[in-house]
Amino acid sequence: MNLLCLWDLDENQKNELKKLVDKKYDLVFVSEKNVKEEHVKDAEIIWGNIPASFLKEATSLKWLQLGTAGVDAYIVPGIFPKNAILTNATGAYGKSVSEHAFSVMLMLMKNLHLYRDDQSKKIWADEGSVTSPKDARILVVGFGDIGKYFARLCKSLGSYIIGVKKHSAKSADDLRIADEIYTIEKLDSLLPSVDVVLSVVPNTKESLDMWNERRFSLMKSSAFFINVGRGSSVNEEDLANALLSKKIRGASIDVTKTEPLPSSSPLWGISNLILTPHCAGSYHLKETVSFIFNIALKNLEYYIKGEKLNNEIDFELGYAKK
Amino acid sequence: MNLLCLWDLDENQKNELKKLVDKKYDLVFVSEKNVKEEHVKDAEIIWGNIPASFLKEATSLKWLQLGTAGVDAYIVPGIFPKNAILTNATGAYGKSVSEHAFSVMLMLMKNLHLYRDDQSKKIWADEGSVTSPKDARILVVGFGDIGKYFARLCKSLGSYIIGVKKHSAKSADDLRIADEIYTIEKLDSLLPSVDVVLSVVPNTKESLDMWNERRFSLMKSSAFFINVGRGSSVNEEDLANALLSKKIRGASIDVTKTEPLPSSSPLWGISNLILTPHCAGSYHLKETVSFIFNIALKNLEYYIKGEKLNNEIDFELGYAKK
Repeated sequence: MNLLCLWDLDENQKNELKKLVDKKYDLVFVSEKNVKEEHVKDAEIIWGNIPASFLKEATSLKWLQLGTAGVDAYIVPGIFPKNAILTNATGAYGKSVSEHAFSVMLMLMKNLHLYRDDQSKKIWADEGSVTSPKDARILVVGFGDIGKYFARLCKSLGSYIIGVKKHSAKSADDLRIADEIYTIEKLDSLLPSVDVVLSVVPNTKESLDMWNERRFSLMKSSAFFINVGRGSSVNEEDLANALLSKKIRGASIDVTKTEPLPSSSPLWGISNLILTPHCAGSYHLKETVSFIFNIALKNLEYYIKGEKLNNEIDFELGYAKK
Repeated sequence: MNLLCLWDLDENQKNELKKLVDKKYDLVFVSEKNVKEEHVKDAEIIWGNIPASFLKEATSLKWLQLGTAGVDAYIVPGIFPKNAILTNATGAYGKSVSEHAFSVMLMLMKNLHLYRDDQSKKIWADEGSVTSPKDARILVVGFGDIGKYFARLCKSLGSYIIGVKKHSAKSADDLRIADEIYTIEKLDSLLPSVDVVLSVVPNTKESLDMWNERRFSLMKSSAFFINVGRGSSVNEEDLANALLSKKIRGASIDVTKTEPLPSSSPLWGISNLILTPHCAGSYHLKETVSFIFNIALKNLEYYIKGEKLNNEIDFELGYAKK
């Protein structure tokens, strides 16, 4: 049987893979762009994001390792082969996505989005007061891999970190990174006192439109809102209104409900919104592919031994259960 | 005699000042905007940046404490009263200017200037690979207050810091912050190996046009150049050429030779240049005024005791000698 790999591995990575596979599988390398349904047919293992429509041809599939954290297209009921395992790449994007979020936060704090607009109009103008990450109170909603990596970046600059998790279990790691940590029930009571809200919640029923008029109204007028989780969690009309009416000072979103964002959306033209095209993750950071490969290789080791894989998707929850 | 203060002090600061002055001086508060020549006449001490043209009226002046680091207008030969002391506010801008420089560096690394341009055109497009501050090699030219503060920010994110100083004396502090430290003579040999160059050199004869075609050519094509020092240190035509021909990947300058930058300058329209209007310092960060006040108050204590003041400007060098 085949192990089909859609990632652009370097020679060292290919050698590591070959060593582990040890002729148990035939290795087939095709890029994500060039993969066809015929490649999928004989694959027992697939590494990479095949089009979800190919799954009906994947009659030999026992394990699909995605290169993304998002799994939406693959967990649509009835689409994924019964008895096959789906794993994602949660953990590979901590560095890339958190550094993006951290950078847009600073851009907002220092008015750099406004100065960029002025530059494009050849305007030399003072855009007023700025704020500092030092001593800023930062609320991280979704205290997983990305949230914690972001928190660490902020904390190293002297921010005060408040983490919000879905479940109450606090790991030693959580408590080392966050100054305070709560479950999601406390969210509304935390919003009025923070300078920055970062949202990195997955796409679930509970998170749909959780960032709405009511919650934006609870925030300080000087607060910044940043979403690098899923577009579904933000009510975009409410966000637009909160920004235009200055209920909050600024925001940045890397994800939208419909992607690409239609040109008719009013979000494009809001000056105190920094809008980026779902670029925080992807493979934009060189290390990301090697992070993904490491997750997949470790999982292959478990798979061959018949042990439980990391990052296995719970189809009810819609994300990997720890 | 009078102590004329042009800064907007809060009540606590005013009380601290009154306590120290203890009726030795009459305190006169006028804003920088509203100060007139008549205010200057009877002042033995002035805190704040009076127009340099007022100096000829300052016949009682014994000490001028500026609120800025830059002193250019006051050290023009023949303009400053003989036997009076000039001090600047070096040390008050470390936080504000370094955080600005740090933020534009991340903006460049994450292509956020390009994404902002795309947003303004309603374009959802991938701007390609990004880089990380972690493990980046960062050269800080001018390892004073601002340079060191910047180095600390970068180091806390895992960058490798190379400091360049004018003089060879290395303080314990220098060696704690920088991984390597050199004198300016080594500059050219360091440029080819670094990912980011930050320049925070003062306006002196030696620094005039020091960033020129030759030095940009020594840098990597993936390197970023950031200037938050003085505009005089950059040959703007050479910088424009280096950016347009992709000799370096990007740059950010907060200062230009002529300010405001004339609308005829080609710098405005260069997409891989982030141009900001000398906004990194000023009083944009709330804490800056209190940092300046603390320098001035400490100096007043020394002044009353007849001791040597901090940050005294050496008119030959054009900046405060340590």
